[in-house]
Amino acid sequence: MFKKILIANRGEIAMRILRTCKEMGIKTVAVYSTADKDSLHVRFADEAVCIGPPASKDSYLKISNIIAAAEITNADAIHPGYGFLSENSNFSRICQENGIKFIGATPDQIDRMGDKANAKKTMKEAGVPCVPGSEGLIDGYDEAAVLAEEMGYPVMIKATAGGGGKGMRAVWKAEELHELWDSAVQEATAAFGNGGMYMEKLIQEPRHIEIQIAGDQYGRACHLSERDCSVQRRNQKLTEETPSPFMTNELREKMGAAAVKAAEYIAYEGVGTIEFLVDKDRNFYFMEMNTRIQVEHPITEQVVDYDLIREQILLASGTAISGINYLPKLHSIECRINAEDPYNEFRPSPGKITELNIPGGHGIRVDTHVYSGYTIPSNYDSMIAKLITTAQTRDEAIAKMKRALEEFYIEGVKTTIPFHRQLMEDKEYLAGNYTTKFMEDFVMDKKFNY
Amino acid sequence: MFKKILIANRGEIAMRILRTCKEMGIKTVAVYSTADKDSLHVRFADEAVCIGPPASKDSYLKISNIIAAAEITNADAIHPGYGFLSENSNFSRICQENGIKFIGATPDQIDRMGDKANAKKTMKEAGVPCVPGSEGLIDGYDEAAVLAEEMGYPVMIKATAGGGGKGMRAVWKAEELHELWDSAVQEATAAFGNGGMYMEKLIQEPRHIEIQIAGDQYGRACHLSERDCSVQRRNQKLTEETPSPFMTNELREKMGAAAVKAAEYIAYEGVGTIEFLVDKDRNFYFMEMNTRIQVEHPITEQVVDYDLIREQILLASGTAISGINYLPKLHSIECRINAEDPYNEFRPSPGKITELNIPGGHGIRVDTHVYSGYTIPSNYDSMIAKLITTAQTRDEAIAKMKRALEEFYIEGVKTTIPFHRQLMEDKEYLAGNYTTKFMEDFVMDKKFNY
Repeated sequence: MFKKILIANRGEIAMRILRTCKEMGIKTVAVYSTADKDSLHVRFADEAVCIGPPASKDSYLKISNIIAAAEITNADAIHPGYGFLSENSNFSRICQENGIKFIGATPDQIDRMGDKANAKKTMKEAGVPCVPGSEGLIDGYDEAAVLAEEMGYPVMIKATAGGGGKGMRAVWKAEELHELWDSAVQEATAAFGNGGMYMEKLIQEPRHIEIQIAGDQYGRACHLSERDCSVQRRNQKLTEETPSPFMTNELREKMGAAAVKAAEYIAYEGVGTIEFLVDKDRNFYFMEMNTRIQVEHPITEQVVDYDLIREQILLASGTAISGINYLPKLHSIECRINAEDPYNEFRPSPGKITELNIPGGHGIRVDTHVYSGYTIPSNYDSMIAKLITTAQTRDEAIAKMKRALEEFYIEGVKTTIPFHRQLMEDKEYLAGNYTTKFMEDFVMDKKFNY
Repeated sequence: MFKKILIANRGEIAMRILRTCKEMGIKTVAVYSTADKDSLHVRFADEAVCIGPPASKDSYLKISNIIAAAEITNADAIHPGYGFLSENSNFSRICQENGIKFIGATPDQIDRMGDKANAKKTMKEAGVPCVPGSEGLIDGYDEAAVLAEEMGYPVMIKATAGGGGKGMRAVWKAEELHELWDSAVQEATAAFGNGGMYMEKLIQEPRHIEIQIAGDQYGRACHLSERDCSVQRRNQKLTEETPSPFMTNELREKMGAAAVKAAEYIAYEGVGTIEFLVDKDRNFYFMEMNTRIQVEHPITEQVVDYDLIREQILLASGTAISGINYLPKLHSIECRINAEDPYNEFRPSPGKITELNIPGGHGIRVDTHVYSGYTIPSNYDSMIAKLITTAQTRDEAIAKMKRALEEFYIEGVKTTIPFHRQLMEDKEYLAGNYTTKFMEDFVMDKKFNY
């Protein structure tokens, strides 16, 4: 087992990793930028090394400084957390070359799954369902018509240079294709000077459901059930839950098996997540793989009684897994508490926390790095806490979330707490009836800006 | 179901009850003395009524004021918490007479189990093992010798007027009895002017292990396994855990069955605890029954996935139980964080909390009513928080406790945190090798005063 782990991250995830290391009797090294000198992870680590000025590129992303900190302190492993260098194959490779164990995927696995086209190709080979689509660009309308017929309507045509919805069309039946194709090509050419188009099957009422997996160094993997992350604003997850209200035992078995197949195909090492889109008929399609621990990992820990950071460390040290999958025994929900103003386009609201009351009691877990008097720097991600509730049923977990949000007060900065309070009163959310489009509808009724 | 519950208590248990009421959608009424006007339970309740000055007898113990508060606010039930009026049969009866449901035992049950001699008699009738002993006073040495032979050595002879160990002798064999009897009678007569003696079997290496039970209004009961509360200083519990490190499946089954038998014999209504002494050979003896929720109830909640306050409310409203017993699925430990100075005879240390960091993360639960800036009044119990850790195994729960105690800092007052930190390093404690005598030995090695 490792003697000393350097935590190449900040904020709540640095605290999260530090806690498990302490519980395992492993020494810890914190690294920090000058903006984070008063952070709890600095205070609670056995050693702390300043690695640069506030800008991430000069500190948390600066590989040479982090490797130097590991060498000075004799750390034998590095945990990258999420974000920053966690999915940087170059960093993983440099750790390897310096004889420091990178607690995460191998450089090859990161490369293979980091590039979207490459990842999709690999998953197709592994026999994991992917969103059907054209192989590269389409020659013109005639080819488009044949392809659409093959994959079945509705389809999406998309400009290869696209962005902001420009040059993108949903096509629901064959009769519409010609006209929409022409207008999309025209729009793309005008906007980007590039009329190149490709096509994908349109996923109806899509849900973002991901499967947590774990793989050992001997090629074996297992899954730890799903998380539903469909409540997103501009691809940013706001709240997650497990089990998914849309899940069935049959679907979990199928998606779990596909995720394990995906992990074993690339002999995946460590914990990771296979993200799927699930349509209204419960067909599922590979979206991407995250080769790291995720923000929302605690809800899985709560329902399967498992410490995923501990598991990462054990797997990195060579522990084998049994291959048994983990099924949810309870229901758990996470709300991300961000220092953002939900009434003003969720703009970051850094500053000093002047008063703080953190909820507690039965079924409540809070992961945070802030305290009363802490100043949230403007340089990084605005997430300041994760509020997680766990209960026998979804309704009870929601009831707990409502009362915990009521108890949670943070003075001095704006937070997303009022947003979550309204969300927990929303009829559609309460019914578990949401897709990735949910937030667009939700904000129309509310005072929040999308 | 009740529409509005008045919480006739303060501190963390008032918050605890309030939280469950909120989660169940039941309105709450807080009551408070003038010393508690800034308490969180006052802030978070739907309504709050001041019931008097700081002295408990004029506020939290003043039945007329509490009943008046319930009537003014139209509360249809009262939850008494622990301490104060929770085991006051008169209060239970007055609630009944005023048409307010007392969430707890009936007046008769409180009367029957509240008096120790009465309780022991009832339990004997029910067939629950009690500490063997003389029926009342012993006539003289000759009767004592016959009795001791009957119940088997070792025995304890005790002065009926006794206190502070005076007039008390442990007798290990027949040859010693005569001399020890005479000296005990002499000592008791000198000290109390009363030489009346009785005799009990001496329980060797006693452990305090209690069984949590629940009974419905239809005469059916079940148990929710045990809590080991042997770590006590002058009969004050300091830390508790479940399962007991001394427990076996066979003993749990026997003790559980005895506790259920006890509860069903008196048709016990609500949740309660049967406290037993367990000797080194795993014989167990009824000690007393607590007809209320206990301070240490959260560790049971953690290992059986159950909300005991919710259960109290459901049972009081007439819900029937299934009769299935609950077995521990995890290991949980509670440390009582008191505003007391462990280096100075655990003297209360009231005052203002100037800085506060509450631990969080995986497997941590904190039940508290304090916040940074809160002033702990000198009028009440000194417990300010309960720190509860839960994990797959005892070793992991202890590791979590150690790191959580490290994170827990409270400035402005003295607390028992340093005591718990040392306890969690103690070899005998770590081995699970402790009896109710543990603390006497523990403090001999440490800087703490017993």
